[in-house]
Amino acid sequence: MEVVSYRPDPSEFAWTFGGVKPVRSVKPGDLLELWTEDAFAGKVRTPEDLVSKVCEFPFVNPQTGPFYVDGAQPGDTLAIHFISIEPARDWAASTTLPLFGALTSTTHNPTLQVPLPEIVWIYGVNARDRTLTFRAVRGEYSVELPMDPMHGTVGVAPASLEARSSLVPAEHGGNMDTPEMRAGVTCYLGVNVEGALFSIGDGHYRQGEGESCGVAVEGAMNTVIAIELIKGVMTAWPRIENDDYIISTGSARPLEDAFRISHWDLVTWLASDYGFDPLDAYQLVTQISESPVANVCDPNYTFVAKAAKRYLPDGDPYRGIRTQLKEVAATYRSEHGMGRAPGTG
Amino acid sequence: MEVVSYRPDPSEFAWTFGGVKPVRSVKPGDLLELWTEDAFAGKVRTPEDLVSKVCEFPFVNPQTGPFYVDGAQPGDTLAIHFISIEPARDWAASTTLPLFGALTSTTHNPTLQVPLPEIVWIYGVNARDRTLTFRAVRGEYSVELPMDPMHGTVGVAPASLEARSSLVPAEHGGNMDTPEMRAGVTCYLGVNVEGALFSIGDGHYRQGEGESCGVAVEGAMNTVIAIELIKGVMTAWPRIENDDYIISTGSARPLEDAFRISHWDLVTWLASDYGFDPLDAYQLVTQISESPVANVCDPNYTFVAKAAKRYLPDGDPYRGIRTQLKEVAATYRSEHGMGRAPGTG
Amino acid sequence: MEVVSYRPDPSEFAWTFGGVKPVRSVKPGDLLELWTEDAFAGKVRTPEDLVSKVCEFPFVNPQTGPFYVDGAQPGDTLAIHFISIEPARDWAASTTLPLFGALTSTTHNPTLQVPLPEIVWIYGVNARDRTLTFRAVRGEYSVELPMDPMHGTVGVAPASLEARSSLVPAEHGGNMDTPEMRAGVTCYLGVNVEGALFSIGDGHYRQGEGESCGVAVEGAMNTVIAIELIKGVMTAWPRIENDDYIISTGSARPLEDAFRISHWDLVTWLASDYGFDPLDAYQLVTQISESPVANVCDPNYTFVAKAAKRYLPDGDPYRGIRTQLKEVAATYRSEHGMGRAPGTG
Amino acid sequence: MEVVSYRPDPSEFAWTFGGVKPVRSVKPGDLLELWTEDAFAGKVRTPEDLVSKVCEFPFVNPQTGPFYVDGAQPGDTLAIHFISIEPARDWAASTTLPLFGALTSTTHNPTLQVPLPEIVWIYGVNARDRTLTFRAVRGEYSVELPMDPMHGTVGVAPASLEARSSLVPAEHGGNMDTPEMRAGVTCYLGVNVEGALFSIGDGHYRQGEGESCGVAVEGAMNTVIAIELIKGVMTAWPRIENDDYIISTGSARPLEDAFRISHWDLVTWLASDYGFDPLDAYQLVTQISESPVANVCDPNYTFVAKAAKRYLPDGDPYRGIRTQLKEVAATYRSEHGMGRAPGTG
Repeated sequence: MEVVSYRPDPSEFAWTFGGVKPVRSVKPGDLLELWTEDAFAGKVRTPEDLVSKVCEFPFVNPQTGPFYVDGAQPGDTLAIHFISIEPARDWAASTTLPLFGALTSTTHNPTLQVPLPEIVWIYGVNARDRTLTFRAVRGEYSVELPMDPMHGTVGVAPASLEARSSLVPAEHGGNMDTPEMRAGVTCYLGVNVEGALFSIGDGHYRQGEGESCGVAVEGAMNTVIAIELIKGVMTAWPRIENDDYIISTGSARPLEDAFRISHWDLVTWLASDYGFDPLDAYQLVTQISESPVANVCDPNYTFVAKAAKRYLPDGDPYRGIRTQLKEVAATYRSEHGMGRAPGTG
Repeated sequence: MEVVSYRPDPSEFAWTFGGVKPVRSVKPGDLLELWTEDAFAGKVRTPEDLVSKVCEFPFVNPQTGPFYVDGAQPGDTLAIHFISIEPARDWAASTTLPLFGALTSTTHNPTLQVPLPEIVWIYGVNARDRTLTFRAVRGEYSVELPMDPMHGTVGVAPASLEARSSLVPAEHGGNMDTPEMRAGVTCYLGVNVEGALFSIGDGHYRQGEGESCGVAVEGAMNTVIAIELIKGVMTAWPRIENDDYIISTGSARPLEDAFRISHWDLVTWLASDYGFDPLDAYQLVTQISESPVANVCDPNYTFVAKAAKRYLPDGDPYRGIRTQLKEVAATYRSEHGMGRAPGTG
Repeated sequence: MEVVSYRPDPSEFAWTFGGVKPVRSVKPGDLLELWTEDAFAGKVRTPEDLVSKVCEFPFVNPQTGPFYVDGAQPGDTLAIHFISIEPARDWAASTTLPLFGALTSTTHNPTLQVPLPEIVWIYGVNARDRTLTFRAVRGEYSVELPMDPMHGTVGVAPASLEARSSLVPAEHGGNMDTPEMRAGVTCYLGVNVEGALFSIGDGHYRQGEGESCGVAVEGAMNTVIAIELIKGVMTAWPRIENDDYIISTGSARPLEDAFRISHWDLVTWLASDYGFDPLDAYQLVTQISESPVANVCDPNYTFVAKAAKRYLPDGDPYRGIRTQLKEVAATYRSEHGMGRAPGTG
Repeated sequence: MEVVSYRPDPSEFAWTFGGVKPVRSVKPGDLLELWTEDAFAGKVRTPEDLVSKVCEFPFVNPQTGPFYVDGAQPGDTLAIHFISIEPARDWAASTTLPLFGALTSTTHNPTLQVPLPEIVWIYGVNARDRTLTFRAVRGEYSVELPMDPMHGTVGVAPASLEARSSLVPAEHGGNMDTPEMRAGVTCYLGVNVEGALFSIGDGHYRQGEGESCGVAVEGAMNTVIAIELIKGVMTAWPRIENDDYIISTGSARPLEDAFRISHWDLVTWLASDYGFDPLDAYQLVTQISESPVANVCDPNYTFVAKAAKRYLPDGDPYRGIRTQLKEVAATYRSEHGMGRAPGTG
């Protein structure tokens, strides 16, 4: 097991999944200590830093990577285990964006109305209490919100010779923006190109489900991951596993198709790895699924479908690789004085 | 305070919201002890009782009601407080339906493919442990699922002189199919016609979020509610309140519009009753909303948007009527040896 | 054959399909000379008559009817043949509406943006040239547009014991807003209740496809129809026939479902009445369909799918009733000095 | 003016827009004589050639190009004028595809139903009558359909550093699949990268609107185009102009967003180039637009919005470049004995 530490120079950011040369080669079993910049490329630092002024498209949502995984081939599955995701700054930013978000017209849902104003909210980070301070910009109210660090963007190079903007979630992962992508989880991604070419970015110190205004509490992250490769096992859509749940994702428009994909994938997962007939799986998913929406703002919308393991028979998805990855994580966290990771029993 | 006990004869079921004469008149402050039949009108009792054989459309999803509320006028809000929702049978049923559900083509999303087979699942009810037994029909697996009783359908007569099938959720409430409609909550509905004409039905012993196959664990219910009227306060879309959350709903297609409506309503609610500027509310909702989907199978899809009260300033929505309704509920439950209701402190 | 002439008093308007008592009984074979008010109930007459000021919801889109058709039973099809549709006024009106239309946020696609302004456009009618005069309100430009009179709303009482606002298009017809509903066509509607209870209204002196802003060139109409009944033949979704095309409709959200319904219905129609295997019909429809959108503004969106008869084998849909209705129309038009009707050879 | 003749070797096909090196450099003013392969890469030639057997994803929908246009820079507009589009074979093919098309479940609208069977239809080409012969595969019927040759795919490299599959339509053009892309039209595309890098392909000998089953009458083409560059003029979404219409396109999901984009673009076009206030343009478009759907099967759905020039004031879009391109086309067609081109007066 090797530990690769990497903090990209701004000139090294990737702005797409696919179409970019790898920054490093890694091997299955390696640990990566990574730093990721925020979705604004670090340029929104004060209330005056309007995105329309300080950011230049398409240079938003910079990714750390891509990493070439030795031996990864199309048809394999890459497992990314999040050992630790920790804020790298004592502040974070959010904003309204012109023509982006769920409660405004957008470039793809255009109207003849005047756009919403751009406003920036700067959040303080209280590391000791693990809270974030929301302060109203047009009022006096402030409140502490629990920190819940996650990555909005985790992905590999897409299939079909494509390169997709880091703002897009799809089969390759990407900008799924689900709060489920916390420390302690294992994310499974289907490999589409030799070397897989995975990247991560878009740290959120927290976000609500759906990410209504299109922008979470955005911040740079220090993140430690372990990677593994499951040879010869395909994964159609990104999946996540934690100690309590198996989780399918789907990213599409309209939103019902994201729902359909994620729940179809969960039914299919129960059929293939847990011994269910598909219609029995459909019935059980109907009664037990937890189905929080991830994002309703990105070029594709994302849903997750969760099945609690306590309602499932024994299964061995992905050859039980998660057990092994959890051990690696526990060792790392222990050696680095981190305490028990979330979702690692 | 009067207690009205009512168990409808099958000839008294309502099949629509609107267009039906009231079965009883009640007064604000009254308690109602109601019995509701299941969505199959009680006709699916064994694995052989296929809906296509035993049910005759449109006679599905029977409602108990409507009730005429003295003094209710368009522009008022009706508050329905759920004191108790308890299974009235020791079994319940679910099924696949031809051309209904999220993972099949439907009458409104038609394809040229062959429909899915109809299968019935009968669930046992374990009252002592408060669990339900799922048994695979095409396999051996069985598992106990926690009981979580709720009403799929709660509504009033719609606006615009309409009568809507009890299968439809919309501004008037109706078949929203959200697991949030548990004992302990207060549901707020805008009044559209004199007397409000509210009904309830469609008891679910539990359901997953999204109700994927279109059918929950369906069962008859004994339900106790308290009703109140908030004069001169309008409610555009159904809202729910429990001890921890204020909750907005939206019902529409495509699903993103249900999301938009519910989150727009929550933003608007924060602005009107909690003193926020709308854009500050938009930002806060973006970071704190919990947004589980309710149904992705009915004629309109339903989303709920939840804001935890612990993150909000003091507010007094609906003139604090819930405090009063909780006291009524506590008294009733105490007098009937029910123990503390969920969500009542 | 009887001729029924009927001009409703404003107190007789119907505002829904279903839930309304019939104004007249008619027999299959009867001719009806009808007058229909415009969608604003005649209240928008000058640029100052903003809908938000002069109209009171739900009293918009008044219908002439409903008519009880002797002998009509659920499972039959009603044929309405449009002998003549002629403007009853020398002016017409259009407008933007707050929160209605395709290029604005709406009540069901809400945003936090400011609504569009309300503006009224009054059109002159040049009867001799059969043109309408568009005049820019915020500029100098004017242009003559060809008159192309049609009914936005044609329907029967819906199934499922429902009553639907006259603004809604669905299986029962209603507010489909398709320019195909011209003089010369035969419209087929499935009967859902005894007597069928059909109404018409919402005359448009012309409209573009999609009815983008939500409001056509709205005007009162003098319309002559012949009605017939096809016993024992069901019609799932409204269909239209003219001399050159058979036309299926679908009304739903999202718009792709309206497309799917109309094209599925057309494929099904070719299979049932023209001897095609469904997949051959699917292929032929793929290569020949003309598929203009009808409305993208109403509570359901409407698509039409057209197949040119010249590409089809001989068929005899609806027992050839159209041939007979065309003869009736030709006689009437000849007796009333109308000249040959459009679409009647 | 130079004439570039180019017939790609199969090894030279492009499978994406973006991410591919140019095959040739051309100059504004050049004429290109191109050959394009069909969407199956020529592999479906008999009824036995099922796509699932003979095609290997992602190697479908091969493009001829890309071409580097000297001087083209982001912010410019590329004009592609279609001088001639003629079938290069005497047969063509169509097919059903597993999990693709409007009347089947798909990978992004998944259900648990069994997929439709794969069937191939081979069309004969009658060059003299300019017709295609449809023959039922599961019946006896055959019919001649008029040839109406067009390109399903016309595009440039996308923005945001992306590479998109040739199956995708979006802002960069691509697989729009609109029958409007006939000989005689000028297509305007916004330039996103230096050299524009345009390609064309996916010849259809004809298609219906919506391309219901996902596959038109697919065939190789001999196509002649003239290209021009309009410096410093941006084009957000692909536009088309013929002698009678200006035409906007929009590609998105759900379909109403494709409608919105195309009609918003048309309103915006009238405002910018024809002197209208946006709300007057909205009103006029509402009454005159012709809005046939292009495709309801591709990764994005495409709508076109057409405004007849006869209803518009004088305008000079794109500096009148079309007048000049039509002269070039007329000369070429005359010199090559082609007769007057469609849409060139």
